[in-house]
Amino acid sequence: MHAEIIAIGSELLTPFKQDTNSLFLTEKLNLLGVSVAFKVVVGDERAHLVDVARNATKRSDIVIFMGGLGPTEDDLTRECVAEALSISLHPDPEQIAALYTRFAARQIPMPQNNAKQADLLDGAVMLRNSRGTAPGQYVVREVEGRRRMVILLPGPPQELKPMTEQVMPVLREFVPPNHFARRMLRLAMIPESQADAIAAPIYTKRSDVQTTILASAGEVQLHLLASGVSVGEAQAKVDSLADDLDAAFGLTVYSTEGEPLEEIVGLHLGMRGLTLAVAESCTGGMLGQRLTSLPGSSRWFVGGAIVYSNELKTKFCGVPAELIEQHGAVSKEVARAMAEGIRVVSGASVGVGVTGIAGPGGATEDKPVGLVYVAVADERGTEFVERNLPGDRELIRRWATQQALDLVRRRITE
Amino acid sequence: MHAEIIAIGSELLTPFKQDTNSLFLTEKLNLLGVSVAFKVVVGDERAHLVDVARNATKRSDIVIFMGGLGPTEDDLTRECVAEALSISLHPDPEQIAALYTRFAARQIPMPQNNAKQADLLDGAVMLRNSRGTAPGQYVVREVEGRRRMVILLPGPPQELKPMTEQVMPVLREFVPPNHFARRMLRLAMIPESQADAIAAPIYTKRSDVQTTILASAGEVQLHLLASGVSVGEAQAKVDSLADDLDAAFGLTVYSTEGEPLEEIVGLHLGMRGLTLAVAESCTGGMLGQRLTSLPGSSRWFVGGAIVYSNELKTKFCGVPAELIEQHGAVSKEVARAMAEGIRVVSGASVGVGVTGIAGPGGATEDKPVGLVYVAVADERGTEFVERNLPGDRELIRRWATQQALDLVRRRITE
Repeated sequence: MHAEIIAIGSELLTPFKQDTNSLFLTEKLNLLGVSVAFKVVVGDERAHLVDVARNATKRSDIVIFMGGLGPTEDDLTRECVAEALSISLHPDPEQIAALYTRFAARQIPMPQNNAKQADLLDGAVMLRNSRGTAPGQYVVREVEGRRRMVILLPGPPQELKPMTEQVMPVLREFVPPNHFARRMLRLAMIPESQADAIAAPIYTKRSDVQTTILASAGEVQLHLLASGVSVGEAQAKVDSLADDLDAAFGLTVYSTEGEPLEEIVGLHLGMRGLTLAVAESCTGGMLGQRLTSLPGSSRWFVGGAIVYSNELKTKFCGVPAELIEQHGAVSKEVARAMAEGIRVVSGASVGVGVTGIAGPGGATEDKPVGLVYVAVADERGTEFVERNLPGDRELIRRWATQQALDLVRRRITE
Repeated sequence: MHAEIIAIGSELLTPFKQDTNSLFLTEKLNLLGVSVAFKVVVGDERAHLVDVARNATKRSDIVIFMGGLGPTEDDLTRECVAEALSISLHPDPEQIAALYTRFAARQIPMPQNNAKQADLLDGAVMLRNSRGTAPGQYVVREVEGRRRMVILLPGPPQELKPMTEQVMPVLREFVPPNHFARRMLRLAMIPESQADAIAAPIYTKRSDVQTTILASAGEVQLHLLASGVSVGEAQAKVDSLADDLDAAFGLTVYSTEGEPLEEIVGLHLGMRGLTLAVAESCTGGMLGQRLTSLPGSSRWFVGGAIVYSNELKTKFCGVPAELIEQHGAVSKEVARAMAEGIRVVSGASVGVGVTGIAGPGGATEDKPVGLVYVAVADERGTEFVERNLPGDRELIRRWATQQALDLVRRRITE
C-alpha cells in the first residue's frame, strides 16, 4: 500500500516557491506504515489536473490533493477529481448554510462563486476547516478493482495541518492495522562517515528498524522508525536500538528525543541554575540568535557582545590590544580572552568566545578560510578547541555556532 | 510548449529531504520562455519510474530527469526512460574508455557495474560531467506525433548545475526563438495588500510583462519577466515597467536588482564611509547575523551588543537602570537609549537599537506580543518607530531585523 501527494497551484511551479506540506504529510503517513511513492506538483489547468488525478487514482492506494479548494475560477480541484473518478459533485446543504451564516455574521452578501466550496464528491465526507472558508473532504472509491482513498485538503499549512489530524483516524481504518514509532538521536561535531562506521554494525543487525542517517553542518541525525502490532511493541524496537546507539556514541549524542542543540544547552543551564554569555566575532550574532530562538531563554541567557572589530574585542571583552597584536584576532589566545572577558563583564556563570575566518576573504598563509577557535570559560577555568571547518561562509558560521554550543554542553555536563 | 521536471530517488520521498534542483531548472527554463507544467518525485522503483517517464513524454515537450544515473542497482533512470520511449541503450565507446582511464589513474580495477554509466539512449548525445562519474545525456524523439526533448542529469546540485549550462544552447535551439529578461524590485515594510493596490494599476496595463508578487516578513518582492525578439527588447520591457513601479513606490523600494536589504545597507554605509553598531534585545543577534552574512562586512560593521538582560542594557549601552525601571525594557525610551548608547560606546557613526516582545510569553496588558521598538542614532540625532508585528516568535524577530535595517537605510539616504 502506498500514497501519492499532489500539490496544486501555479505558484508552486515558479522558481520562487516550493511545496513543503508534503514533508509533513509524509511523516504522518509513515507513522501509519504507508510510504509515499509519488509526489506531483501541477498548476491550475483543468486538463493537466485531470490527467494527474487520473494517473494517481490508477496507481496509488491513498491520494492526497492539496490546494485549489477556494472560491475562485482557478480553484479546480473538486471538479477535476470528480471528472477523473467519473463521479458527480453535489452541494452539501449543511455547508451551504454554514457559508451563508459566516457571511451574514460579517453583514456582507455572499458572492455566488463561494457556493462551490460547499460541493461534495458523491459519497464523500466533509472535513471541517476551522481556519478558513474552504472545507476539505475524503471519499473511498473503487478504481480498476482496488479501493482508493482520495483526500482533498486546502493548501495553506495552518489549515492543512489541523485537518490532517481530523483525517488520521479515517486513514488508520483504511490501512492494514499496524503501529509505528519513531525516535531521533542527534550527534554533534562528528563526521558523517565516522558516525556511519560506528552506527552501521549496530543498525544493520536490526532489520526490524528502518534507520536513516542525515548530516548537516556539525550535526548528524539518526532517524529510527519501526512497526509493530501495538504502539508499545513498535516503541520497544526503536527504544532498544536507540539505547544501543546511545551507548556506542556516548557523549557525542546530545539529544535522544530530537531536541535541537540550543535547547539541550538551555535545559542543562537551567537545571543547574547557570547563565551564559557569548562573545562572537566571525559568527556575528548567529550564536545569540540560535540561543534566543527558544522562548524563555532569558532565564539562562544574559546576552553578550558582537565583537566584529578588534576595538570592540577590547572594549566589551577586555581582550588586551597587545594580545590581538601578538597572536592575531583569530587565535586560541584571543578566543580564550573573549570567553573569559565576556564572562567577567556580563557576570554570567559561563562565557563562550568564537573567532575565525569565515571567508571567502581574510585568509593568510598560516590561517586558512574555515579556521575557527572556540573557547568556554567558567569558574573552573577555560578550555578551547581549534577547528578547520569546511564549506562556504554560511556553512562555516553555522558549524562554528554548533561547535560553540557543543563545547558549552560538554563543559557543563562534565 | 511546456516542461516537466522529474526528480528520482527514494530519499526525496522521506519527511527529511526535498528536491531543490527544480527551482534552479525552472528559472533556467523560464528564461527560455518555457514554463514548467509538472514536477514529479518518484523513488528508485522500476515500474513507478517507467510509468512516470511514459506519462511525461506523452504530455510534455521538454522532460528533464534528475538522478538515478550512478552505477548501483538502484540507478534505473537510463533503463526506464529507454523502456518508456521504446528505444534501446548501447554503450558509448568513448565513455567506456574514459571510465577505464579514470579507474586506471587511481590504480584500481573498475567494478563491472560502473560500465552501465556509459550507456546511451539511441540517438542521444552525451553530456560531460566534470565533477562526478555519471555523465548525462539528451535525445530528441517523436512521441505521438510531437517532438520531445528528453534530458537526463545527475542529482547532486554541484554536478547538475554546470551540466545544465552545457545543455542550455541545445534547449535554446529546440524552443521557438525568443529571448527573456528578468528584474526583481524589493520593498521593505509595506503590507502585501497595499503594495498590490499601488502596483496592480501599473502592471495590469502591461500585459507584455509577467509580474509576480511575493511577500514575507517585512518584505515584498515584485518579480518581472518579459520576452522579446532580442535580449535588448525583453530587457527594455522589464526595465520600463521597473522604472514605473520604482517611481510609484518611491523610497519604499530598497533594491531594483534583487539585492537583499543588508547588502543595500552595507553599500550605502560603505559609499558614505560610515560605520554601524547594533544593540539587540528581542532579536538576540539576528540583526548582526544578517549584516555579517555578507563577505567584507567588517569594512562598515563594527559589531555591537546582545543585551538580552536589563543589566547588559545598562552595562554595554549605558541605558540608565531608572529609565528601564520607569518605562520598561520594551519602550521607545529604552530603544532610543540603546541606539544612542551603542553608538557612543562603539564609536560607530550610526547606532541601532531593537527591543520588543517576540513571544509567546512576556506580554502585559498594554504591551502585546509583537510590539517592537526600533531606534537609530547618528550625529544628527535619534529617531524611532513603534510596530505591532504579526506572526510567531521567529517571524516577529525576522520582521524586527527588517524594520531595523530599513530604518538605517532611510536614515542614511535621507
